[in-house]
Amino acid sequence: MLRAPTDPRWLEVALGDFDRVLMDHAHCEKKAAAQALSLVASYPDRARLVQRCARLAQEELGHFRQVYDRLLARGLTLGRDPGDPYAQALRKHLRRSDPGRLTDLLLVSALIEARSCERLGLLAGALPDPDLRQFYAALAQAEAGHEKLFVGLAREYDRPEVVAERLAALAEAEADVVASLPIEPRVH
Amino acid sequence: MLRAPTDPRWLEVALGDFDRVLMDHAHCEKKAAAQALSLVASYPDRARLVQRCARLAQEELGHFRQVYDRLLARGLTLGRDPGDPYAQALRKHLRRSDPGRLTDLLLVSALIEARSCERLGLLAGALPDPDLRQFYAALAQAEAGHEKLFVGLAREYDRPEVVAERLAALAEAEADVVASLPIEPRVH
Repeated sequence: MLRAPTDPRWLEVALGDFDRVLMDHAHCEKKAAAQALSLVASYPDRARLVQRCARLAQEELGHFRQVYDRLLARGLTLGRDPGDPYAQALRKHLRRSDPGRLTDLLLVSALIEARSCERLGLLAGALPDPDLRQFYAALAQAEAGHEKLFVGLAREYDRPEVVAERLAALAEAEADVVASLPIEPRVH
Repeated sequence: MLRAPTDPRWLEVALGDFDRVLMDHAHCEKKAAAQALSLVASYPDRARLVQRCARLAQEELGHFRQVYDRLLARGLTLGRDPGDPYAQALRKHLRRSDPGRLTDLLLVSALIEARSCERLGLLAGALPDPDLRQFYAALAQAEAGHEKLFVGLAREYDRPEVVAERLAALAEAEADVVASLPIEPRVH
């Protein structure tokens, strides 16, 4: 789904300050839960979306708790979320109103999950600690499932050709956003 | 903890339009999850708060899913949240900045849980359907646990005499808010 792979230098930067990656990762899981909950609040009459996103929010909170416990175990303290330029830049590509906005929200969520999956997978393959490698491999697999979930929901509520077209456009935008941002020790 | 019991007419009104109660209840569980998540986002450095509230948000989402499934089973559709005058009125009593705001946020959450516990307990004792009675009895018990959780967190981060004083003041305010609102088929 992604139009461009992550710059190979990212992995080096991430491994060089893994504590910061872990802190950003905690914020990402928390925001993924909040975003799923926000979809539930915005589209309460779409039964499948509500059921899937409420369960997803629970799962993301479970991931958040696991990451947070690892932060504490490393003697780290989580600070306020400094914000996420990646997600903010992607949000600018959302259509402003329905019909259209829901499809875009779901597809942008799918792309964020796809990028997370890619990068958590890179960490899983490169971290020195076998326990952390296993942890990240499991999380990468979960993100791959979420990517499918969001695309499936988009296809449930919009025509397949519209979904395909928007997914192509938003994937282009996502690749441009990634290329425009500095390489930092963050998930995104 | 509550300064005034619910008006006995509330139960009659609630049983008279139970579908509306169920819809409001779904929104309440969703907002309880969102509020717990918002505490996590606002105080990410308070480890016990983060751990307890993240778990609580998962639990509230579980309740939301159960209530939502019951809505669907009754052929109902959930609409957008029309807003919650009870919670909005309570929020006016929060101190605006820390120190103080966290204690107030936790104690207002405790009071909302206490009121929910009381009312879900009333439903548990009066609904004609034994399955719904059991469902509401279990949820009322959960709310009682959440009430203790929030008071415990307030005591963790503030002096006991301050917590006792603020709890007394906010409980007075809560009773006034309940008395000022019309009796409607809602949880609050």
